[in-house]
Parts: sequence; C-alpha cells; structure tokens
Amino acid sequence: MLDVCLLGTGGMMPLPYRWLTSCMMRYNGSNLLIDSGEGTQIAIRDKGWSVNPIDVILFTHFHADHISGLPGLLLAMANAERKDPVLLVGPKGLERVVTNLRVIAPDLPFELRFHELSGEMEDLEVKDFRIRAFRVRHNVTCYGYRVRIDRNGRFDAARAKELEIPLKYWNPLQKGQTIEDNGRILTPDMVLGAPRKGLQVTYCTDTRPTDSIREAAKGSDLFICEGMYGDEDKISDAKKKKHMMMQEAATLAAEAEVGEMWLTHFSPSVSYPENYAPVINRIFPRTCFVKDGHSADLLFEDEEET
Amino acid sequence: MLDVCLLGTGGMMPLPYRWLTSCMMRYNGSNLLIDSGEGTQIAIRDKGWSVNPIDVILFTHFHADHISGLPGLLLAMANAERKDPVLLVGPKGLERVVTNLRVIAPDLPFELRFHELSGEMEDLEVKDFRIRAFRVRHNVTCYGYRVRIDRNGRFDAARAKELEIPLKYWNPLQKGQTIEDNGRILTPDMVLGAPRKGLQVTYCTDTRPTDSIREAAKGSDLFICEGMYGDEDKISDAKKKKHMMMQEAATLAAEAEVGEMWLTHFSPSVSYPENYAPVINRIFPRTCFVKDGHSADLLFEDEEET
Repeated sequence: MLDVCLLGTGGMMPLPYRWLTSCMMRYNGSNLLIDSGEGTQIAIRDKGWSVNPIDVILFTHFHADHISGLPGLLLAMANAERKDPVLLVGPKGLERVVTNLRVIAPDLPFELRFHELSGEMEDLEVKDFRIRAFRVRHNVTCYGYRVRIDRNGRFDAARAKELEIPLKYWNPLQKGQTIEDNGRILTPDMVLGAPRKGLQVTYCTDTRPTDSIREAAKGSDLFICEGMYGDEDKISDAKKKKHMMMQEAATLAAEAEVGEMWLTHFSPSVSYPENYAPVINRIFPRTCFVKDGHSADLLFEDEEET
Repeated sequence: MLDVCLLGTGGMMPLPYRWLTSCMMRYNGSNLLIDSGEGTQIAIRDKGWSVNPIDVILFTHFHADHISGLPGLLLAMANAERKDPVLLVGPKGLERVVTNLRVIAPDLPFELRFHELSGEMEDLEVKDFRIRAFRVRHNVTCYGYRVRIDRNGRFDAARAKELEIPLKYWNPLQKGQTIEDNGRILTPDMVLGAPRKGLQVTYCTDTRPTDSIREAAKGSDLFICEGMYGDEDKISDAKKKKHMMMQEAATLAAEAEVGEMWLTHFSPSVSYPENYAPVINRIFPRTCFVKDGHSADLLFEDEEET
C-alpha cells in the first residue's frame, strides 16, 4: 500500500485554508516529499503525518512557493529527532539555494545529501521508491517526478518446501536477497513467481504540457498535475507564464491513460476549482478537484485495505 | 488611533491554527511589522490587513521562527505592487541573513534598506512611528521594541485667528511644520497647546526578564510579552533556553505599570494558555491570553472610535 497525500493545492502564494502545493508519499516506513513551500510543515502536522521518516525531498524548481518552507521543515525534523541523512533532489543549483536558506537553520542533527539533476531524464532509487525525474517546460529549469513501487512475484511456499529451503531464508528471499546456505546459492527467482504490477504516481506542476509528461505518466495509477486556470480565456496567461490549463492537464491524463488525476496548483484567482468539473470531466472523467490534505491509499492489484 | 494586531501567538514552530508570533501596527496609512516567521503573510491575509503599506519590519532576532516567512512576505508585497522602499531593522548580521534568504526572492520592485542595531538601546523614526530598540537577554543577540505615537497639542483656532494666520497654513502648522509667510515665521507652538499624551506599545519575546524591558515598557498602554510556559516547574527550562514564564511577564507588567498585557509566544507544549489565567491575573489582572489575529484600536485620550 502506497499512501499519497496532496498536502496543499495552492499555486504562487499561500492562502488561508489553501496551503502551497506539495505532496507526501509513505511506503514501508519511509516518506518521500515533493516540494516544501511556506507552510508545508504545518500542512503535514494538520494531516497528522510525521516529518521524521522523510528520507527524500524532491524539488521541482526553486521558485519560492516550492521551497520557502524548507528551513522550517528541516528544523521540525530536527525537533522530531531525525538522525538519518536526508537526500535532497532538484535542478542544478540545489546545494547553493539550500545552503543560502540554511542561514536560519545552520545546526541540524542529520546530514543533508544533495543530488543535482542534469539532462532530460534521470532515474534514482531511495529505499523502495524508484524515482524518475523528467524535464518539463517552465520559465526556469523544472522537473516532474514519477514514483514507482515495484512488486515482486508471489512467494511460492510449495516450491520452497520442494527445494528444501530452510524456513529462516523465506523472508529474505521474498525481499529479493540472495542467500548462501552451506555452499548452495539460493536466489529469489527460485521461489518467486513473475513480478506483479506495481504502483505508479506521476507528479508535475509549473509547466506547459510536454511529451515528457505524457510519456512518464503513461499508465500511472495516479497523475497529480497542475491545473492553474480553468477559464478558456486564461490560455494566453498560461502560455506566457508557462503554466497549464485544467483542460490541458485533462488531455494529458486521457492521452497517458492514467487511472485517476488530481488537479492542483490552482491560481489564487481561482476560488472554486471544482466549478470547472463539468468541462474537465468531459475530457477526462476520473479527475478529482481535491482539497488540501486529500489522501488515498493506493493498493496493489490483489491487496486488501488493512 | 493606533491599530495593533498580534498576528500569531506561537513560539518555536508554527502549528495548525497557531501562527508564529508577529505583530502588526497601523497608523495613519503606514504599517509596521515586528518579526515574520513562516506563515506570517497568511496570517496577515487571514486578518484582512494589507501587506502593501508595510514601511518597516523590525526583527527581534534571527531564529527561524521569527524570520523564515520573510521571502514569501516580500514576494507578497511585490505582488501587491509595493513600490516604496522598505526599511528592515534588526541585530547585526541583518543584511547578510536577508541577502541569503533572498536567494528565492531575488527580484523585488522595491528597495530594501537595512538598519543594523548595535549597543544597548537605539531610537529611530519611521513615518509617525517613534521606535526604541532595546537589548534583551536571549541565547543570541535579541532586541525588544517600543513603539510610540506622539500627539501634538490641541490646535487653538481662536489663537490662529487672533494672530491673523491665513487658513491655508492651519493644517501644516497643526502637523508640526514651520511656515514662512511674507517674511513672517509661523511656528506650530504659536497655535498648538501643550503636547498631549500619545500612545505607547512595548513588545518583547525570546528573553529572560530584564531591566531594559521594565524601563522601556514603563507606562505603556499595551505591553506584548512572551509567556512561553505557565507551569511553575518549567522555570529551569525557561532559564536554560532564555525564555520567560507567564508569571515573570506578569511581574514585569505590574512593575512597569502598563495599561494592559497580551501574552504570546506560547510553547507548542502549552495547548490552552488561558488555563493559567487564574494564577497570572493574581499577579497582573489586566492580562489577556489572546488568540491569533487579536487586535485592538488604541485611542488617544480624548479620541472617539470612528
């Protein structure tokens, strides 16, 4: 089960009752965060989720509404007794920007590690999160992220017994480890069926529609995408400021055949995004105009809600 | 009339429904802000006050909970089409800290001016605000602020007529200007009575009790003071972390004979500050355990609410 929460849905500036857009995912005891604008730490607290297990923070870009909450968040993590290193991922310049912001958070009880992206696409792994960063098109260098959780094949107990594999190795093998047992090499494929369908979430804000988004999002269970404006006459603003219309997001969702789309990063001028639902649902019916703090437990195909 | 709003009452970290401690004052079209932790711009919006007229921001010190909201606030001011320079006042290092934080707010349509404090006490004037900064005792250099609005004597129209002062000079004279009229020097004292009692607000957080606070606060109409803890057994924490107990704040208020005290900067561990009212009111009865966004219109002695 992968928990996904859209902590906020605001774009450009935080508003009362509309936090800035950021997203947290939880899987197997590890948390991943995308962006942290002003107030993100409060939105996390509001949701009742924890800042301590955040192992990685992915930044789309360095406009203030996507990173201004970082110093406060890091201090909150320190306060929650985080000790393990935290990996920060983002466009080139990440370490310089973060180092500057840390003028007010110089002492942290954990190490910050940096991974600066370059090029059009990059894959990395953090715990169970298989992350793909892909370039999108904003007025500064900006990335979208796809997060995938793989799922091993089903464990075949009958086969394990048949092969006389001691019980103590079942769990490590199930987790993908290779074992040496008195000179005999035991590999996961001996006891696991074919890999099963995993879970996939694609996230992008602050961009015009691009092929890179369409390709990354292809077949995603959940597609979280900016829908800055809904009024058709805002298209020139969207093009000029390199943002996306709700209609364009819905078209991408349809083309990428995603399971569900959550719209976010609404312009402060859009008071009731859900008013555009009749129009947008005609393009892509499984669109949610979610509110801040909306979350979903994404389940593997044959998994049951716990 | 001087409007004072305590935008938030939280100390150390922002909580849902408890913004970080900061204070805004409005007088005669000009706004003064003390501190701007994460979320201050939202608290201002929540209150319905404007960021555009902020002419001066006073910083007590540079711990994150007192300044982390600055980049977002400056961008909000830019967005509200602020054009005039903004004066920032704070301890030594102010310009360096702000310059670092501005890595995510590099382009502003207004000039930032810096005034770095040194020494035990310093007076400055911004528009009608007569500001006194005074050193307090925290674990880093920290200042409290007293803000005073002076009030001229009453305008004596009969005397102005008697002196044959043309009507067009009445208003400038009333405002304290000296006029030359065909070689004749007209001074305000010719038409104004003795200065009347002004208004005075004293503000301090993040400090142990000090003589400097007692002296600055003397006779203030309003004294805004930190009351980090209420439980008597927290005194060792307060001493160690250089904060103040509610009891200590109340004692200062009584000794300084202030009109009213607002307690703020509550520890996140204090869920219901008002529970301590019975104890604190015995020390200083005119203590308010205000909530975020609490404001008051302070009136001059014979002024009527408009």
